[in-house]
Parts: sequence; structure tokens; C-alpha cells
Amino acid sequence: MSKRVLEIRKSVLGKNDLLAAELRTRFQAAGVTVFNLVSGPGAGKTALLERTLRTLMREGRRAAALTGDLETDNDARRLEASGATVRQIMTHGCCHLDAEMISTHIEGWDLAAFDVLFIENVGNLVCPASYDLGEDSRVALLSVTEGEDKPLKYPGIFHSADAAVLTKMDLAAACEFDLEAAAGNLRAVHPAIRIIETSAKTGMGMREWMDFLLEPRERLP
Amino acid sequence: MSKRVLEIRKSVLGKNDLLAAELRTRFQAAGVTVFNLVSGPGAGKTALLERTLRTLMREGRRAAALTGDLETDNDARRLEASGATVRQIMTHGCCHLDAEMISTHIEGWDLAAFDVLFIENVGNLVCPASYDLGEDSRVALLSVTEGEDKPLKYPGIFHSADAAVLTKMDLAAACEFDLEAAAGNLRAVHPAIRIIETSAKTGMGMREWMDFLLEPRERLP
Repeated sequence: MSKRVLEIRKSVLGKNDLLAAELRTRFQAAGVTVFNLVSGPGAGKTALLERTLRTLMREGRRAAALTGDLETDNDARRLEASGATVRQIMTHGCCHLDAEMISTHIEGWDLAAFDVLFIENVGNLVCPASYDLGEDSRVALLSVTEGEDKPLKYPGIFHSADAAVLTKMDLAAACEFDLEAAAGNLRAVHPAIRIIETSAKTGMGMREWMDFLLEPRERLP
Repeated sequence: MSKRVLEIRKSVLGKNDLLAAELRTRFQAAGVTVFNLVSGPGAGKTALLERTLRTLMREGRRAAALTGDLETDNDARRLEASGATVRQIMTHGCCHLDAEMISTHIEGWDLAAFDVLFIENVGNLVCPASYDLGEDSRVALLSVTEGEDKPLKYPGIFHSADAAVLTKMDLAAACEFDLEAAAGNLRAVHPAIRIIETSAKTGMGMREWMDFLLEPRERLP
């Protein structure tokens, strides 16, 4: 990248950080816990979210989701079936969500009406790492079909995540997935990362995942 | 994205296009056919390439590969075992390869010594779409584990590809992969796209893939 592009990028990121800090203050004042879900395309963000929203709604939690894609509103339609409040963010070619898109798409929402808000990022293991969305927690999904080496190849995003959710564990045997190697690679780029093994298909790990979502979190003073 | 960032991006892309055109002229003068392999992370670019290089070398073709990753030189080491000439491009955080990186990394190579050159892009279904690398053919991989909807969600990259290689077909049943839906979605964004079903594990479709690689191609006048 040229020096000029890097300078421009820095100033854009500075602006995003300011807006994300404002969002974080608003979210915390409203008492809503916000999760930013990141992963490569097809790692299973929507499937995990579908099952998560259904469980939360059934348990009487008030949940909302913003779901990002370059094109189509398929995911919003899939997630709405849970009864949660959902909006699609179409980026029309942009490779990540930014704080401004979040700010625009929560317009008109009473944030205090929600316990939990999920932001499903664009499927991309690189660019979303650089954009704070005001979340409490960033969660990186890694499907067993992608291979154990991905944390080493995309260290930025796994380093920036509080938790790694291993998805599609029902396919682990078929893919000859080496759990120990994957966990070792995750810890190599982020020693304190929380690792949760799940399958949205069989329900494996969903209780541990729900406990993670609902545990008390530190807030700004 | 702000107007200023868009302007800068346009001028960067303009510069990339010029350099890519120069590369294309050099490649064609040397008689080497160049493929740019793009996909999301973990779709199986390296596994396909590993098997492809082994087969090409066994058949007496002279093959080379440039393999891109944010970090690690794991892929280059994997691919070198085939006997092909391989170089790793580490982008250190950049989300795509560009023509300048290609130009830098072929320095010192006698291009005329190769029949085929593969460029394995960074695993990302968004950003690599915008960067011409001087290739003859762009090939987008889609693994059956990612879901049939990806062409609709990432239309730019599938629209820009000459061929779509469906990978990990050995897992199709376990993933309940709907081939007809996937092919329909690919054709919805690119009606003329060539679709090749493969499994680097079982060897399925490798002959069709090799035929595609070796078929005569139109060259610049």
C-alpha cells in the first residue's frame, strides 16, 4: 500500500474509533450487551445466530441482530423467524462493517428494549479486524472445515477477538480436524482467548456459548 | 466509504491496472499461462494446488506458483514438495495481492521456463476481486462446506471469475450440499461461468480441471 493510502486509512480508522466509542457509551447506557461476530465466508455465523436467537427468545431474553452482507437480505429473513428484531446491512461491495453503518442501522431502535445485540459482520477474516463497532465482545468463528492453520494465517482477527467459537464440530471427524492443533494455534496468537466448541446442527456446546453470552461483563466507569 | 477514500482507491486501482497490463504482456511473451486462484479462507486452494502441481510435474509440464498469505510461509513449504518452483508472498496484514507484489516476487525468474504459473491469492471473497494480477484466467473456488448462497452474497468475485471450482465434493453429502442450487446461484451472477466439481482428497474432477488448465487460450494480438 502506498504511503498516501496508509495515511488516509489511518484517518478513516481514527474517525471510526471515535464513532465506535460513542456507540459503546450508548450501548452501555441502554444496558444492552453487544457482540461482533466475525469469520470467513460460510463459517456458520448465521446458523449459530439462528439457534442462539431462538434459544434467547424462548428463555425470555430480548434480542436483536444486525446482519451484514455485500448483497442480499437472505440472512435477515432467516434470522427474523426467531422472533428477534433484525435488520440487514447491505454494504454493496464494502468488505467490512464500520461504526457509521451500525449507527445508521440502529436508528429508531429503543436500545434499552434489548438485553443482547448481535452484529454479524461481513464474511472476511481480514478487514473487519480493524473496525471497532462499539461491541462489548468480539467473537471469531472458525469452522472445522477451514483447517487448523487459519489463526496463524489471519492472526489480526483472532488476536483481536475475546472468544473463538469452533463451529460445525459435527463434521470434525469427516474433516480429520485436529482440535489440539487448532487450539494451540489460537493460543499462539492470543494466549487468553476463550475457546468454545459448537455445532449449530446438533446443539453441541450451545449451553457453554449461552453462558458466555450472558455472563456479567465489565462496563465503562 | 468517504469520497476522498474512494478517489484515492480509484487512483490506486488505476495504477494496479497499468502494472497488471504490463505483467500480462510479459507473461504472454514468455508463453506462460497464468491463473489467479481466489476463494474464502480454507476453501482448499492450497490442497487443490498441491495435487495440481504434482500432476503437472509428473506429466512433464513446468509449473510455478506464488502463494499469498497475511503471515506464515506454510503454504510455500507445502507446495514445494511437488518439485514445482514456489515463492511465498507475505502481505503482513494486506487483504489481497496486487500487481506490484507479483512483479516483485517474480524477479529473477525466467518466465519462459514455465508452462503454467499459479497465483494463490489471500483467502478473501471480497477485496481480491478488484485487483487484476495480469492473469489469463481467474478461478474462484467454492467449497461445499461454505453453503450454496455464497455467489449471491459475494457477486463481485464470482462475476469476475472465468471458472468456479467446487471443492471438497467428498463432503457434499455430509454437508447436505445442493449442487443444483449452487450452480444456479453461480450462473445468476455469471451466466457463462465454467463450473468444475472437484475433490483434492479423492481426485474427483481432477482430469476435467487439468483439461481446463491446459486448453488453448486467446492471447493478446
